[in-house]
Amino acid sequence: MAPVALNPQVSEEISSAQKITFGKFLFQRIKSLGVDSIFGVPGDFNLKLLDYLYEIEGLNWVGCCNELNSAYAADGYSRASNKLGVLVTTFGVGELSAMNGVSGAFAESVPVLHIVGTSTRKQKQAKSALHHLVPSASCFKEPDHYVYEKMVAGTISCHVESLFDLDTACDQVDRLIKEILIQKRPGYLFIPSDFSDELIDPSNLISNPGSNLFPTPFFSNQTDKIVEEILNKIYNSKFPTILGDIFVDRYQLVDELRNFAEKSQFPSFSTYMGKSILKENSDKYIGDFLGAESNTHVRDIMLKSDCILHIGGFLNEINTGHDTLYNDIDSDSVVFLHPEYVKIGNGEIYYEPFMNVLPLLLERFESLKVNYSNIKDISYKPEYNAIPEPSKDEIKTPISQGFLLKSLQNFIQPNDLVVCDTGSFMFGLPDLRLPEGARLLGQHFYLSIGYGMPASFGASIAVRDMKLQALANKTEKKFERVVLIQGDGAAELTIQELSNFMYHEDLNPAIILLNNNGYTVERIINGPTMSYNDIRSGWKWSKLLSVLGDENCLRHDSHEIVEKNDLVKHFNEFNKDKDNNKVKFAEIILDQFDVPWRLKFMTKRN
Amino acid sequence: MAPVALNPQVSEEISSAQKITFGKFLFQRIKSLGVDSIFGVPGDFNLKLLDYLYEIEGLNWVGCCNELNSAYAADGYSRASNKLGVLVTTFGVGELSAMNGVSGAFAESVPVLHIVGTSTRKQKQAKSALHHLVPSASCFKEPDHYVYEKMVAGTISCHVESLFDLDTACDQVDRLIKEILIQKRPGYLFIPSDFSDELIDPSNLISNPGSNLFPTPFFSNQTDKIVEEILNKIYNSKFPTILGDIFVDRYQLVDELRNFAEKSQFPSFSTYMGKSILKENSDKYIGDFLGAESNTHVRDIMLKSDCILHIGGFLNEINTGHDTLYNDIDSDSVVFLHPEYVKIGNGEIYYEPFMNVLPLLLERFESLKVNYSNIKDISYKPEYNAIPEPSKDEIKTPISQGFLLKSLQNFIQPNDLVVCDTGSFMFGLPDLRLPEGARLLGQHFYLSIGYGMPASFGASIAVRDMKLQALANKTEKKFERVVLIQGDGAAELTIQELSNFMYHEDLNPAIILLNNNGYTVERIINGPTMSYNDIRSGWKWSKLLSVLGDENCLRHDSHEIVEKNDLVKHFNEFNKDKDNNKVKFAEIILDQFDVPWRLKFMTKRN
Repeated sequence: MAPVALNPQVSEEISSAQKITFGKFLFQRIKSLGVDSIFGVPGDFNLKLLDYLYEIEGLNWVGCCNELNSAYAADGYSRASNKLGVLVTTFGVGELSAMNGVSGAFAESVPVLHIVGTSTRKQKQAKSALHHLVPSASCFKEPDHYVYEKMVAGTISCHVESLFDLDTACDQVDRLIKEILIQKRPGYLFIPSDFSDELIDPSNLISNPGSNLFPTPFFSNQTDKIVEEILNKIYNSKFPTILGDIFVDRYQLVDELRNFAEKSQFPSFSTYMGKSILKENSDKYIGDFLGAESNTHVRDIMLKSDCILHIGGFLNEINTGHDTLYNDIDSDSVVFLHPEYVKIGNGEIYYEPFMNVLPLLLERFESLKVNYSNIKDISYKPEYNAIPEPSKDEIKTPISQGFLLKSLQNFIQPNDLVVCDTGSFMFGLPDLRLPEGARLLGQHFYLSIGYGMPASFGASIAVRDMKLQALANKTEKKFERVVLIQGDGAAELTIQELSNFMYHEDLNPAIILLNNNGYTVERIINGPTMSYNDIRSGWKWSKLLSVLGDENCLRHDSHEIVEKNDLVKHFNEFNKDKDNNKVKFAEIILDQFDVPWRLKFMTKRN
Repeated sequence: MAPVALNPQVSEEISSAQKITFGKFLFQRIKSLGVDSIFGVPGDFNLKLLDYLYEIEGLNWVGCCNELNSAYAADGYSRASNKLGVLVTTFGVGELSAMNGVSGAFAESVPVLHIVGTSTRKQKQAKSALHHLVPSASCFKEPDHYVYEKMVAGTISCHVESLFDLDTACDQVDRLIKEILIQKRPGYLFIPSDFSDELIDPSNLISNPGSNLFPTPFFSNQTDKIVEEILNKIYNSKFPTILGDIFVDRYQLVDELRNFAEKSQFPSFSTYMGKSILKENSDKYIGDFLGAESNTHVRDIMLKSDCILHIGGFLNEINTGHDTLYNDIDSDSVVFLHPEYVKIGNGEIYYEPFMNVLPLLLERFESLKVNYSNIKDISYKPEYNAIPEPSKDEIKTPISQGFLLKSLQNFIQPNDLVVCDTGSFMFGLPDLRLPEGARLLGQHFYLSIGYGMPASFGASIAVRDMKLQALANKTEKKFERVVLIQGDGAAELTIQELSNFMYHEDLNPAIILLNNNGYTVERIINGPTMSYNDIRSGWKWSKLLSVLGDENCLRHDSHEIVEKNDLVKHFNEFNKDKDNNKVKFAEIILDQFDVPWRLKFMTKRN
């Protein structure tokens, strides 16, 4: 998270001589971090605070339909922009509803600031039995106004600040933000609802500009040694490879990794969560490596490696192909680079962030010292490169996930930002090869279904904000189209947020809704025909956009697609009209038991 | 919660000699408490458990669109049936999403059993880094498989049982259910996902039938004395009154309270949360008493009382008219009867449940000893009794909340079960006089918007179950129509659950959707024209039912209503077609600043 896009006006506008309201301080601080949009749902404990958001030029309130959706949206905003995601909710009812979204951000290391409007200081002191506040277990005990704060401290947040004392409030805000930016995890700010009008000394904004809150690189006295040791291992290797992983993105080292891949010309791979971090349109990009769950051609090449540079690695069940990532690989071959440590083969652990190591590795790497004999001819081009025209025989046949995957392979355009929700189709993604500049975003470890719709909305707002900022700064910037892929079962959970795409006039994502009549991923795991895997039937998905805000179809283009020829036709049209001002929506009818090979393989193994 | 409607087959079906699966035990146990439907969302950590639900005859799985909705539905089921509400969710993603719904049930003393499918025992022991599970704060520490359990223990639940040891599992289940039934609050049951297939000794089901788990009345050695003291206070009073409150319903003493009101002929009132506990069609029912927020005629009469029997009282901000309930009332005049204590005027506190006291009070009360001189002529009849036919001049004018309230006064039929969501209109409810047998259900203290739609769905399932049970038992039973009243801002949060009414063929509620273009209740509190109080615009509410499952309008009847004459017409039609098999939906267009007088009064005062 680089200190880019900061607002230079902050220190000019505000002089330390003049006190400002706490509300203004807070939102000015957030704006000074480069954040342009804040998500949430209003409630009586945060309304007065929200008034001050409007005082900050260029900062937008983005209301969501409910709090879980707003948490997902803030998460999607952060992932898409690599900035802080911010959401505001109200005491109890709001903050608790958002909890699963915040937990997902915690699990996947997404920096989110969750601001909660709470009871007033007076109400806290009086221990009033307020609405939105659970009573104590005993009727003889007053309610605990901090009960919700205790639930998230040390569980799904990296840091919590609860404001009460005006003198320390600004420092508390800054300390919290700093922790969130360092730890890349959600933090909570609890603000009494009588707090926002209070006047405070704004000196923090002047003495400590937003850029100061971002973590600064440091080099320990062991960095050189570690880099040298890794380089030696590379130079002594017969088959060095690169395995890019998710923390490379979180710590904004994608360019460094790509440059290293380019400079070294090593065969490169990404993990499941790391997908799209490396340039997949490079011949040297072999494919997505998921241990036993990889494509055979991918795994065969990886297993030859005697030096796997696993960079920004995140070890968890899903990202390791259900704990098979290093199966049949000599542990001494793995160089593991993590945000908190580095491990070179079977050597000792160095407590050194990979963020220190990777830039130096790139700088000092000398290709002349590498033995390229075994890897120089290793390359891979995917089989399919165009939306497959269905043959005459199959033109009117149902669409399989396999056909869809092939079609998506070409539907996805350079610089697309693809959001894929949890579901059966997700497990086909590693077989997709993304074009130049395309990114994939998803909650591929925490796996909360329903994440996709609001997260892609948040990502769309982030793309819009980046576009506006580029226009304002007259900088050139590639603009991304957001593509959401989501199953019907997952979509039901958070469907109302669909309306927000049309409510915001400048959004035009493509939404691919896979209608396979229920929770297909669960049908594969257990109870294929059990009614618990059914969902509410008969939804007319393709008509939803008309009903949820765009009755006259001015802002959307929506189709129900049953046959292969229609799929090809509409995908081509969507791409032709890519830049028009419409939300494109394709409901694709699939068989309820048709899934990617990988999902069947996984469930058989586990 | 009386031990009615138990399944007598339990002990016959199961012999202690034969072991049964834990899954079967659990659902048999739940069924033995009279529960017929279980709500939730499937997930890979609960699928195998759910298989066993289908083995229990008469127990239904009711899938919901998301977990928050399923928690609200279980809450609504419990309130409508006075049985245990049960929901099943999955590890992390599911249980956290449901949290705000469970918290609301805790706040308002609704007995809900939340069953969570968790990681297997093996995974817990290995401390595996599983999907759905947040990692530890430190990457050097394994994840805590109990992290979510710790969040709810001692905060929003009355009891938590986490299963691991097969030998104690059945006792743990029974202990938990007992606690929930005693404390009338939610409890959590965490079940490892490898647990349901395991064989256990079913002896608990035989030795300890469902009825044994319900709290049994007990009489302390002070009960007589307390009852006598209260009776003396009544007999010495010049103006005794009854103030019915919510715990009378929770502890199933509505009949006793109504009989006492009938026998005593005292002027009677209910609190905000207690609405519909007393027979509001009685002349002796004066109205809803909310302290300073009462109607003047109601408050004037109450202030004359020198003996207010506040029965089943719940003291909190909303239910006390923002802490004005006893304003201008001599504290020595109040007899406060609570589930855990009784306080007679300024006397000492007796730690005696009112559940012991009320039945004896009813039994021993002698009207001959009462001085009726001041109260015998006190009675009240509401002003309006028919849907007001709009005059010729106003027939095409917009609908006000005042006109709507008058119209509802007659639209609501005897035995209707009215669910009103949080919103501006809610504060007009105390001016409504419910007909014979009609009930009001709402989250009128915790006030989480969005509760209404899923809760009324859960209540509808409860009514259906009671109907089926009455049919099976050939008992006579009045069947209720469910009427939901909800604003547009609130409806957006949980709108997907609308589809579930049509998915279940035997449900036919009337849904009154108040479209006032945003969060009107918040516009009154702060920022009347601020954009944070807007919602996503342009929804075609009345077309939602076609899109969410009933395209051909076979199961619903839906109207957008702008003018008074249309409102009268459709309300009359809805009542005429009350028993047909259709969901009736009326979207009523209201002005965004038009609210009940009480809301304006409240916000001006606070």
